[in-house]
Amino acid sequence: MNRRDRVVKLLKAGQTKIITDLEDLDSKGKFQEYSWQRPGGGGGTAQVMEGGKVFERAGVNVSAVHGVQVPPSLAQKHPGAADKPFFATGISMVLHPCNPYVPAFHANYRYFEVGASDIWWFGGGADMTPSYGFAEDAVYFHKTLKDFCDRHNLSYYPKFKVNCDDYFFIKHRQEMRGIGGIFFDQLQDVGTGDWEANFKFIRDGIDTILPSYLPIVKRRQDMAYGERERQWQLYRRGRYVEFNLVYDRGTTFGLQTSGNIEAILMSMPPLARWEFNAQPELNSPEAKLAEYLKPRNWAEFELEEKLAG
Amino acid sequence: MNRRDRVVKLLKAGQTKIITDLEDLDSKGKFQEYSWQRPGGGGGTAQVMEGGKVFERAGVNVSAVHGVQVPPSLAQKHPGAADKPFFATGISMVLHPCNPYVPAFHANYRYFEVGASDIWWFGGGADMTPSYGFAEDAVYFHKTLKDFCDRHNLSYYPKFKVNCDDYFFIKHRQEMRGIGGIFFDQLQDVGTGDWEANFKFIRDGIDTILPSYLPIVKRRQDMAYGERERQWQLYRRGRYVEFNLVYDRGTTFGLQTSGNIEAILMSMPPLARWEFNAQPELNSPEAKLAEYLKPRNWAEFELEEKLAG
Repeated sequence: MNRRDRVVKLLKAGQTKIITDLEDLDSKGKFQEYSWQRPGGGGGTAQVMEGGKVFERAGVNVSAVHGVQVPPSLAQKHPGAADKPFFATGISMVLHPCNPYVPAFHANYRYFEVGASDIWWFGGGADMTPSYGFAEDAVYFHKTLKDFCDRHNLSYYPKFKVNCDDYFFIKHRQEMRGIGGIFFDQLQDVGTGDWEANFKFIRDGIDTILPSYLPIVKRRQDMAYGERERQWQLYRRGRYVEFNLVYDRGTTFGLQTSGNIEAILMSMPPLARWEFNAQPELNSPEAKLAEYLKPRNWAEFELEEKLAG
Repeated sequence: MNRRDRVVKLLKAGQTKIITDLEDLDSKGKFQEYSWQRPGGGGGTAQVMEGGKVFERAGVNVSAVHGVQVPPSLAQKHPGAADKPFFATGISMVLHPCNPYVPAFHANYRYFEVGASDIWWFGGGADMTPSYGFAEDAVYFHKTLKDFCDRHNLSYYPKFKVNCDDYFFIKHRQEMRGIGGIFFDQLQDVGTGDWEANFKFIRDGIDTILPSYLPIVKRRQDMAYGERERQWQLYRRGRYVEFNLVYDRGTTFGLQTSGNIEAILMSMPPLARWEFNAQPELNSPEAKLAEYLKPRNWAEFELEEKLAG
């Protein structure tokens, strides 16, 4: 099997496993399949659950597209790629839970090939966006991602963690979208350039998606909450919308290039709220979230520590 | 009184009149005043009503800012303006009604001066965004705007109407944000270049805001609706968010230049919804909205006409 087929097979198997496990956990919501074609070549399959018991919306999309000419934005970055055919495949998922104490989650792994596969790279990452901060969740999430990275290359986690903090930053709010995670582009530039090693890393990354997140869901999904917590969650989701529509490269690129709109905007929360000049009460759990939206070395964080006020 | 002071006085008087009349109409909601300073010079006053009986959110903002150097984006358009001090003032308002049958409304009038007022221009416009289409509302709105324009220059309405259709277009959805209205930039280029004539046009424009919209509110605000109409309204508001965060020049410019975030995002709806691949039922009132989101010559529309399917 050639390289691109091996990656596509991996991503499709990942999608099947993920939606099966999410349906098991949710116990009420079912994924609906939605396939789409790209006029220029290729297409994708989005799996979307709406109105679940645990997940208000869960979307897992796998796409594989190709074209006769590398898009201009990529040709600029890779002069050797200009005018060559390309192939791109990826899995991307966004989970918006019902319970405000359960963080939202996003992960994406992707592979790009130019010409006769002489130019290729992997990219990806995973990050978490809580409405209420829990240090133990942030520590667990980052430790799991660090362990995964460390199994492959000890230089990965420190770089990818900082990339993630930088990337998921809402400049106009001067805050991070969430508590970060890992984010990397063009893995071979930091890794060994060994395709098989890169592939193994991505495979492990996909296998790490649910173990990094589901234990946190299970810990929070039955916590009691009321209208106050729901309203705060909806308000925080407004920030999620702001990030995705204003800054997210995948989203803005997709909108500019007329990709499949429904698949691109699958990341939008089902419901979001804006409030003029909202100021959470001093020292409230809502106000304390701000301390989580700054870059922190969560993998080394001692749970006995207090977050500086 | 110098020119800039005359414009600021006009806009502030307009703001006072508008919020007074909106409070009268709403009968429950009250505007809260929120003043802000711009670090580089100047500031503004936002008046915001939330949770009214008629308006879920109403915001009317007046700002007057100045600086020692024209922003780069403007210097590019006006080479003569580079390195010169500037002054900018404007009134901007966004109304998000409670009742899904009442359209959302937006208007903005603004004035810009460079150097010793040797370079100046006015800009502005008003547009309406229904969730449910009513031809008589679209006709009334456009006729009122056309009458206002025609009082000053018969060439204005046809130009400004087309500008508005072009500007409020959600490219990735291939639909207009609403039923349009008028939109113009750098009025003196199309008008006579006569400052007093331009000022009178803007004054009349501000006086036309409420007469173009309130009769429509009054006609729709007591129409009975249920959960279906509310959900559709929230879904359509998602499009409003998409337009404002992805395309609106004022919003994107404001976010990039770190303007006052709360004043910039005052335009966001209080609550908005996204649904994966939503397809309104064929021939339903929701599906029929699509016919309103195309450029139409509403001012000449005969109410006996049927909208082409």
